[in-house]
Amino acid sequence: MKNNANVCERLRYYVMKKATIKDIASELNISPSSVSRALSDGPGVSPSLKEAILNAAERLNYIPNSSAKSLKTMKTQTIGLIVSDIRNPFFLDFMSGIETVLFPRGYKFIVCDIGEDFEKERVYIKWLLEHGVEGILTSPSQGEDGRNNSKLYREAVRRNIPVVFYDRILEGMERISSVTLDNRQAILQGVLHLRDNGHEKLGIVLHKRGIYTIEERLRGFKEACNMLAIEVNEDWIIENAVDAERASLPLESVLKSDKRPDAIISTNQFLNEVIVATVRRMGLKIPDDLSIVGFDDHSMNELIDPPLTTIRQPVKDIGRIAATILLSEIDGTRGEKSKVVLKAELLQRKSVSKLI
Amino acid sequence: MKNNANVCERLRYYVMKKATIKDIASELNISPSSVSRALSDGPGVSPSLKEAILNAAERLNYIPNSSAKSLKTMKTQTIGLIVSDIRNPFFLDFMSGIETVLFPRGYKFIVCDIGEDFEKERVYIKWLLEHGVEGILTSPSQGEDGRNNSKLYREAVRRNIPVVFYDRILEGMERISSVTLDNRQAILQGVLHLRDNGHEKLGIVLHKRGIYTIEERLRGFKEACNMLAIEVNEDWIIENAVDAERASLPLESVLKSDKRPDAIISTNQFLNEVIVATVRRMGLKIPDDLSIVGFDDHSMNELIDPPLTTIRQPVKDIGRIAATILLSEIDGTRGEKSKVVLKAELLQRKSVSKLI
Repeated sequence: MKNNANVCERLRYYVMKKATIKDIASELNISPSSVSRALSDGPGVSPSLKEAILNAAERLNYIPNSSAKSLKTMKTQTIGLIVSDIRNPFFLDFMSGIETVLFPRGYKFIVCDIGEDFEKERVYIKWLLEHGVEGILTSPSQGEDGRNNSKLYREAVRRNIPVVFYDRILEGMERISSVTLDNRQAILQGVLHLRDNGHEKLGIVLHKRGIYTIEERLRGFKEACNMLAIEVNEDWIIENAVDAERASLPLESVLKSDKRPDAIISTNQFLNEVIVATVRRMGLKIPDDLSIVGFDDHSMNELIDPPLTTIRQPVKDIGRIAATILLSEIDGTRGEKSKVVLKAELLQRKSVSKLI
Repeated sequence: MKNNANVCERLRYYVMKKATIKDIASELNISPSSVSRALSDGPGVSPSLKEAILNAAERLNYIPNSSAKSLKTMKTQTIGLIVSDIRNPFFLDFMSGIETVLFPRGYKFIVCDIGEDFEKERVYIKWLLEHGVEGILTSPSQGEDGRNNSKLYREAVRRNIPVVFYDRILEGMERISSVTLDNRQAILQGVLHLRDNGHEKLGIVLHKRGIYTIEERLRGFKEACNMLAIEVNEDWIIENAVDAERASLPLESVLKSDKRPDAIISTNQFLNEVIVATVRRMGLKIPDDLSIVGFDDHSMNELIDPPLTTIRQPVKDIGRIAATILLSEIDGTRGEKSKVVLKAELLQRKSVSKLI
């Protein structure tokens, strides 16, 4: 009876305070690492010891220390959505797309706006893991030096929290599904359309180098030019146009030089606007003085002067498909990983002149 | 010792299974309603009985049944953001505004896109209450018959989950803070600008009637006309323009009639686009044939043909202020409720002709 009363004392204690791996170890007079191995189904623990450990864990009300794990079993029905920059109109259609898939299933999403800052992305991923989201949809960023958060995304997968990349991927992560655009084909369409209209002096304006989509679009531009025997002039490739100033200043200097391009390809909606505004401010006429092929398609592109010819990506579909894959991975009904690649289409309006 | 062993048995049981109010009642041989009253600090329970009940609750590991409550004490650091329609570009700047306030404090937001459906809003609010958000930022919707979710918002406040209205409010809810635009003053600015340029035949296009902002903008329009002795022609008030078709069809018929307005005021960014597209499709010139004053200011308004004169609301500030108020209410540092009203400004571009 003495022993029973002791157990009772201990139980009373554990009602108030959750047991740890250490508590279980001291209860059984074994090392914490044995307990840890037994609880995580690791090697080197005999079946009988393992049973004793599991019994003690149950008796002492042991709850795994990771709140992510414990919340996960509570089914938070929440996923994390990491967005590169919430001010990009891409995300209106994208969020609308994922919502149509998540809502009927009772899932909600937490928006994590990383503003192209991979350190901020890290803070957000950690928070998501600690707060028990069931999955993560992410468009990953990376630092100047190429560093990224692949380690943390691997940690999420290890914890059984599925991750799906959309729009952007991190190379070499085969265990993570992705939904992306065929960025090279997208740019190829723009280059083809310009060449078909007689343009062979082509420039391109790009956001931050290093980002997957940007590298792919630049690669696609060079490949397309080579394929069509168009000379690539490196001076006309404007990189790291991360804000209005760093897009418009170099563009202005390129357009003022004696040797200037007669057509410019944009690579996102924000740059569409900056390019059109810069060209107008310089007093150049679109498309007579300069042809422009935009990228992404905001409904306003049709209303600007002149209506903008643009490479449209199926943003809502990217959202819908990414959310569908994530939910099926959360359900555990999907074993192998999906790598979905969607095609862009060219919307011909009036910002490309006919030279031939 | 027998008794102790019994308690021990019970404790063992409660380690596995959380105690309920019924368990406490049967432990003490009293009615569940007495337990409930004691636990919620209600009347009609003697101090000594209350103490016995609280002791039993602690002993039996009683955790309040509402998962919202239990998650709340865990500090989920999450707030719910209810948006009327995620496709509205209003929300890019708005979310960017709240993020700048929430992120440094470690708070995240769950996006609930209700698509102007107050039934869907109800589902979302319930989910938020059940899943332990610490506060709710909302732009409430309402049904055709004027029904809304005021009861559920009151329930949130009762559960100590602060609610802050932004953009829209529900009338008669004094215990909820709000951040809104001075919608009447906003429309008055548009009407004044048109009158100053000699326009007195004014039309207005409005989203769904019944919504707070829409009613205020319509009231503002009528007040301004009365104030300036401009006759209001009810035929030129286009209501319930909830999608492109229900905006463009009535607008077209008004503009085709013998007696037509010479200027149109828009009341959101989506309608700006529909109005410009409709007027162009009809072959009318802006501003020579029709003047337009837009509402909300997307960066593209400057690039359309002609650049759109528009009533700009400080969207990012609305987000920042609403999030700041919500966090201080979550902290409990703010007692009385705030009713913040911000002013719009008129951006003069080139879509209004000078008749005088």
